[in-house]
Amino acid sequence: MRITLLAGGVGGAKLAEGLAAICPPENLSIIGNIADDEEFHGLWVSPDIDTLTYSLADMIDRKQGWGLADERHRVLAGLERLGCDTWMSLGDQDMATHIFRTQLRNQGVRPSAIAQTIAESLGVKAHILLPTDDPLQTRIKTEQGWLSFQEYFVRERCQPDVLDIRFKGAEESWPTPEAVQAIKNADLLLIAPSNPIVSIAPILAIPGIRQAVAETRAARVAVSPLIGGRTIKGPADRMLVASGFACNSLGVADSYAGLIDGLVIDDEDQAEREELEARGFQVLTTSTLMTCAEDKNRLAKDVLAFASTVGVEEAATC
Amino acid sequence: MRITLLAGGVGGAKLAEGLAAICPPENLSIIGNIADDEEFHGLWVSPDIDTLTYSLADMIDRKQGWGLADERHRVLAGLERLGCDTWMSLGDQDMATHIFRTQLRNQGVRPSAIAQTIAESLGVKAHILLPTDDPLQTRIKTEQGWLSFQEYFVRERCQPDVLDIRFKGAEESWPTPEAVQAIKNADLLLIAPSNPIVSIAPILAIPGIRQAVAETRAARVAVSPLIGGRTIKGPADRMLVASGFACNSLGVADSYAGLIDGLVIDDEDQAEREELEARGFQVLTTSTLMTCAEDKNRLAKDVLAFASTVGVEEAATC
Repeated sequence: MRITLLAGGVGGAKLAEGLAAICPPENLSIIGNIADDEEFHGLWVSPDIDTLTYSLADMIDRKQGWGLADERHRVLAGLERLGCDTWMSLGDQDMATHIFRTQLRNQGVRPSAIAQTIAESLGVKAHILLPTDDPLQTRIKTEQGWLSFQEYFVRERCQPDVLDIRFKGAEESWPTPEAVQAIKNADLLLIAPSNPIVSIAPILAIPGIRQAVAETRAARVAVSPLIGGRTIKGPADRMLVASGFACNSLGVADSYAGLIDGLVIDDEDQAEREELEARGFQVLTTSTLMTCAEDKNRLAKDVLAFASTVGVEEAATC
Repeated sequence: MRITLLAGGVGGAKLAEGLAAICPPENLSIIGNIADDEEFHGLWVSPDIDTLTYSLADMIDRKQGWGLADERHRVLAGLERLGCDTWMSLGDQDMATHIFRTQLRNQGVRPSAIAQTIAESLGVKAHILLPTDDPLQTRIKTEQGWLSFQEYFVRERCQPDVLDIRFKGAEESWPTPEAVQAIKNADLLLIAPSNPIVSIAPILAIPGIRQAVAETRAARVAVSPLIGGRTIKGPADRMLVASGFACNSLGVADSYAGLIDGLVIDDEDQAEREELEARGFQVLTTSTLMTCAEDKNRLAKDVLAFASTVGVEEAATC
């Protein structure tokens, strides 16, 4: 079974790990979010893609969920000594990734080919795909004005109220052929329990990706990032509200309107099941919290078992 | 007294430190060698300038004479994991300098302004000047073909026979106004005990620099890098021979023909004094070995005392 996963950073990487553990990883394609990318110190940093790569390479800092394990920050200290703004935490080993990526980008190599090369070099067998090779950036409007995602997320620690969110460059962007193929050829299209508004939406904002997801014959299942109507970490709950969606699994489903057939929600949110089903979604209720490898593998198994019924029931409906 | 020093890497940095210790550092200008610069991993590395800067900032690795003290190489290990050639040893803190320099170069800032910014950020009070902002690269012909300086020096460990040496870009290069002013306005122009062939010659190969040195009214004194006809470290002795000069202080003096008035040689080479004087050079014989701060300061004092007589005697001769 060919599985394609749309994923953001930490939550997406956790489900990707579960899937890679229980499926042949070469049948797993993960389309990551690049709208959080930003240049720091002249180096191109791609936080969500790196989180996916480092997680699947088993090199991730398990405690914080991002960055490499056993990091130091001596380069950053050196940059600070030279008067640079160093609010974006970049470890020394991680810096190698950014230096390598930037060099290849400046040589004209496609960003998606670079991501694949990095993943292969670190021993990742699943396919990490970029949704587009074009510039695409999440812009977040606050009372301070428009911020990049990292400025909002890291520098301002998600404190400012979010007044508006835009994906700069999305309308003009072309999908990568690899991402379109992975969506078209998938038996199962999954959306990870990532932030629907700033992790998944920018992927779906690329017209060619949105169209491929709308048209694929794959069963399409999203995993809600909410547990009891709240996120474990990060501002997804507040962002759902700021974007006009309900802060519950109904809001998550609405944010994917027309693009999913089934939704996996946490046991804590089972009260919403009936209304989801009334709206035409197939629903799996299970524990979606992933704190260890066993959690990830079990959720991946649950999702796959559920997804196989989504395909069947939908076929029966046709 | 305004002193301008032409200097290469390690030997040049040692005399620079001595001078900075005994003179008001704001009256000291050091024109460094940039023909050893090279791009590694997309980052612009300027080894001789960094050695000068780190030495004067008292951050140098005293044991090896270059690089920063207490370095680790985690970035380099990361780059190696990504399949990069990592024969050029670059420490983590050092990497910050290269990242910073590259970012500013890509923004169009003049390389000499960047060098000054780095030096100031690290607390260096002497003026570290670049001889040119134009591309200039030492090329070394060996039986393997033409190599860059770092390929010859670091990768090949100076093993191949040197068949020819060229300074690519020298003829078309313009001196920086700061370097020309520092030579013109100096009371004393010193040439450090650096490699005459690959550290000092590329500076003097810039037509505007050569002309300024030829025309300055400053007393001009070189310190021979040889002790007993040999170098402490590095291939200067073999390179003198390969370039058609004698491997002694006479050869060093010849390599600076028309550009120096006096020469400082080591006690071990005092047998050559008479012939140097016969050729019209004023000569100081002293211990030129610099292994500690006291050595550096003492040599700097000896050189300054000698240089003051060079100016006086020359004036008397006119």
